[in-house]
Amino acid sequence: MDPTERHQTLALAREQGRLQETQLGPWQYLRLNQDCHELPEGTVVFGDTVIFGYPHIGRIFWLTTGLREQLSGPCWVEEKVDGYNVRLFRHGDSVLALTRRGYLCPFTSDRLADLLDLRVFAEQPDLVLCAEVAGPENPYNEAAPAAITEDVRLFVFDAMRHNRLGLLPPREKLALVERYGLPAVPQFGLHRLDDLEPLRALLLELDRTGREGVVFKEDTPPHHRIKYVTGNSALSDLRATSLAIRQLPAEYFMQRVLRLALFRCEHGLPVTGDLAQALGESLLDGMVAAIDQQQRQHKVCHTFRCRFRQRANAELLMAALGQRLGEGQVRLLRLAPEGAYWRLEFTKGLPRTTGLLGHLLSGGLVFD
Amino acid sequence: MDPTERHQTLALAREQGRLQETQLGPWQYLRLNQDCHELPEGTVVFGDTVIFGYPHIGRIFWLTTGLREQLSGPCWVEEKVDGYNVRLFRHGDSVLALTRRGYLCPFTSDRLADLLDLRVFAEQPDLVLCAEVAGPENPYNEAAPAAITEDVRLFVFDAMRHNRLGLLPPREKLALVERYGLPAVPQFGLHRLDDLEPLRALLLELDRTGREGVVFKEDTPPHHRIKYVTGNSALSDLRATSLAIRQLPAEYFMQRVLRLALFRCEHGLPVTGDLAQALGESLLDGMVAAIDQQQRQHKVCHTFRCRFRQRANAELLMAALGQRLGEGQVRLLRLAPEGAYWRLEFTKGLPRTTGLLGHLLSGGLVFD
Repeated sequence: MDPTERHQTLALAREQGRLQETQLGPWQYLRLNQDCHELPEGTVVFGDTVIFGYPHIGRIFWLTTGLREQLSGPCWVEEKVDGYNVRLFRHGDSVLALTRRGYLCPFTSDRLADLLDLRVFAEQPDLVLCAEVAGPENPYNEAAPAAITEDVRLFVFDAMRHNRLGLLPPREKLALVERYGLPAVPQFGLHRLDDLEPLRALLLELDRTGREGVVFKEDTPPHHRIKYVTGNSALSDLRATSLAIRQLPAEYFMQRVLRLALFRCEHGLPVTGDLAQALGESLLDGMVAAIDQQQRQHKVCHTFRCRFRQRANAELLMAALGQRLGEGQVRLLRLAPEGAYWRLEFTKGLPRTTGLLGHLLSGGLVFD
Repeated sequence: MDPTERHQTLALAREQGRLQETQLGPWQYLRLNQDCHELPEGTVVFGDTVIFGYPHIGRIFWLTTGLREQLSGPCWVEEKVDGYNVRLFRHGDSVLALTRRGYLCPFTSDRLADLLDLRVFAEQPDLVLCAEVAGPENPYNEAAPAAITEDVRLFVFDAMRHNRLGLLPPREKLALVERYGLPAVPQFGLHRLDDLEPLRALLLELDRTGREGVVFKEDTPPHHRIKYVTGNSALSDLRATSLAIRQLPAEYFMQRVLRLALFRCEHGLPVTGDLAQALGESLLDGMVAAIDQQQRQHKVCHTFRCRFRQRANAELLMAALGQRLGEGQVRLLRLAPEGAYWRLEFTKGLPRTTGLLGHLLSGGLVFD
C-alpha cells in the first residue's frame, strides 16, 4: 500500500465514521474503530503521524499439519506471553502506549520508564515497539503468567515504523532488541519445519510449565506469522474468565475446551482424571463465584489492582475506563500512596453476567 | 382463539410459505415449519383436522424464586422424562405419531402397539396424547434415562383434542390416564408452593438417581406450566452431546454448565473434585471421540439403533431422515430380522462438527 492509497483509505474510513476523534488528557487523535480494507482496527493518527494497528495473526489448532500448510522455510519461534498488546511510540517529548484497539493507555504510559530503557526512542524517533505487558497487577487482564508474581513486565515481540503499514522482518526486530537491550519475549531460535520433534518437545515443556504458547515467524518474505497455544493455556483462560459467563460469547469458552482436547490428542497426552477435574473446576469455580457475588451484591464484577508513578495517570485511567465501559461499571476502591507508587484498586462490572444471573436468580423464565 | 381466527392464521401461514406440503409414504399433510402468532411450529393439517403443535414451556433456573414468580396456587408436579416429544392421534384407521416439529415418525408409529393400549383412540377419536418416548434404542436422542436399559418406553404427560389449541387441564389428563391405564410420566402429586422443603427433597432425590427434572402445572386456570431440571441432567446432556461440538450452538453447552452451577449453589451442594471431574469428562470424552473419528474416517457421526415391527417402516424412517438431513448424512449399517423385530442400525453425520474438525486437523487457520 503506497502513501496515496493509505491516505485514501483513511479518508474513506473518516467518511464512514470509522475514524473517531479520541481525547485523553492533553492528547487528541483519531482512532480507527474497526478494520477498514488493509488497515487494522486500532490504527491511530496523531497530527501527521499514523501508527498502524497491530495486524491479525491467525491461529492453528493442529501443529503437524498447520505448520506445513501455513508456513514455508525456516521460522523464528518466540514465546507468546499471556498479557495485553501495546504499541509504544514517541510523540513530541513523550513515549506513549496504545492498546490493541488504539486507546492511549495511561497505566502503561505511566510505567514505561520502569519497564524498558526509553533511550531507544531518542535514537529511533520513528520506531514503534509492539509488546505484551503481563503480570497480576494490570488494569485489563484477569490472568497472568505464573512466573510473574507481582506488578507487570513488558516483552517486546515486534516492531513497526511511523507511517508504515506492517511489521519489520524478524531479524530487524531481533537486531533492535539486541542493540538496545530491550526486554523481549523468550526467543527459541530459528527452526526448520521438516523436523517437528524439537518443536513438539518445546510445546510440551511450555504446557508443563503453564505457559501460553508460541508464535512462528517466517525468516524470509512475506514473513507469515501464526500462533499456536498449549492445552494448559486453555485451562488458565477458562479459570480467569468463567466468572464472566455471558459477558464473553459462549464460543469463547467452548473453543478453549476444544483447544485442550486437540492439544491432548495431537501430543498423545491422555485425558486423565486430574485433567478432567482441572477443566471442571476452571469452569465451575468462576460460575459459583459469580452466583455468589450476584446473591450478595446483586452484581458481578472483576477486581483489578495496579500501581502508578503518578497519581494523575491513575485518575486518567479511571476516567478513560469509565467513558469506555459506562460510568456505573467502573468503581474506585482505593487510590493511595504505597512506597514509591500510587496503589490503585478498582472493580469493573460485568453487566451481561449481572443481567443474566439477576434474571435467573429472581426466578425469570427462559424459553429454549 | 376461535375457529375463524385459527383459520385466518393458518391461511396467513400458508401465504408466507410457513405451511409446507409434507409427504411420508401414503400420508400427505401440511406442516407449520415455524411459530406463527399463537400457533406453534409443528402444527399439522390432515384434511379437515388440525393437530396443534405442543406449546413452548418456559424453564426456571432457580427453584425458590422461580416458583413464586411464575406460578400461583397448588401445582401438579410430574417427572420430566429425557426422551423425544411426540403427539399421538387417530387418522382414519391408523394411530400416528408426530414429532415436536410436526414430522410423522415412522419409528414411533410402528411401535405404538408395543408402547400403549390403543383402544383409547377408538373411544376417544379426537384425542391427541402428548408423550415422551425414551430409551437407548431410538432414532433421535443420544441420551436415555439410566433406568431404561433397552428399547424404548412411552410416557404420556399431556393431552389435547383435534382442532383445539392448547392442552387439557391436568386433572382431565390424569382422569384419561387412569381410565385407560395409559403409561404416564411419574406423578408426584399436588404440591403447595409455600412449603418448598418437600419439593427440594424430591429434586435432590431425582438428581441423585440421575433423572432429568420436573414439570409444574397449575391446578387451576390458566394452568401455567414450567420446567425445572436437576444438575445431573446437565451433565448427562453434555456427555451425550460433546461429540457434536459446533453442530449444536456453543450456548447449548455453556447453558448446561451454568445449570449445573446454579443447581449446586441453590441446593447447598459443594463443587467436589468428583463433580468437577465428571463435568470435565462429560466435555472432553466426546470431543476426543470426535477428533478420533475425524482422524480415522474423515467425518464425525452418531450411531443409532432401534427395532421395528415392520421392515417397511424402517425403510420409511431412513428415507425421511435422508430427506431431512441430506442423503449423504444418513447411512444404513444394518437392517435384519432379530427375534420378532427388524433391527435397524444407522449413522447420522454431524456435518458442522466434521467441517470444523476437518478444517482444524488439516492445519486450517482461525482468526479470533
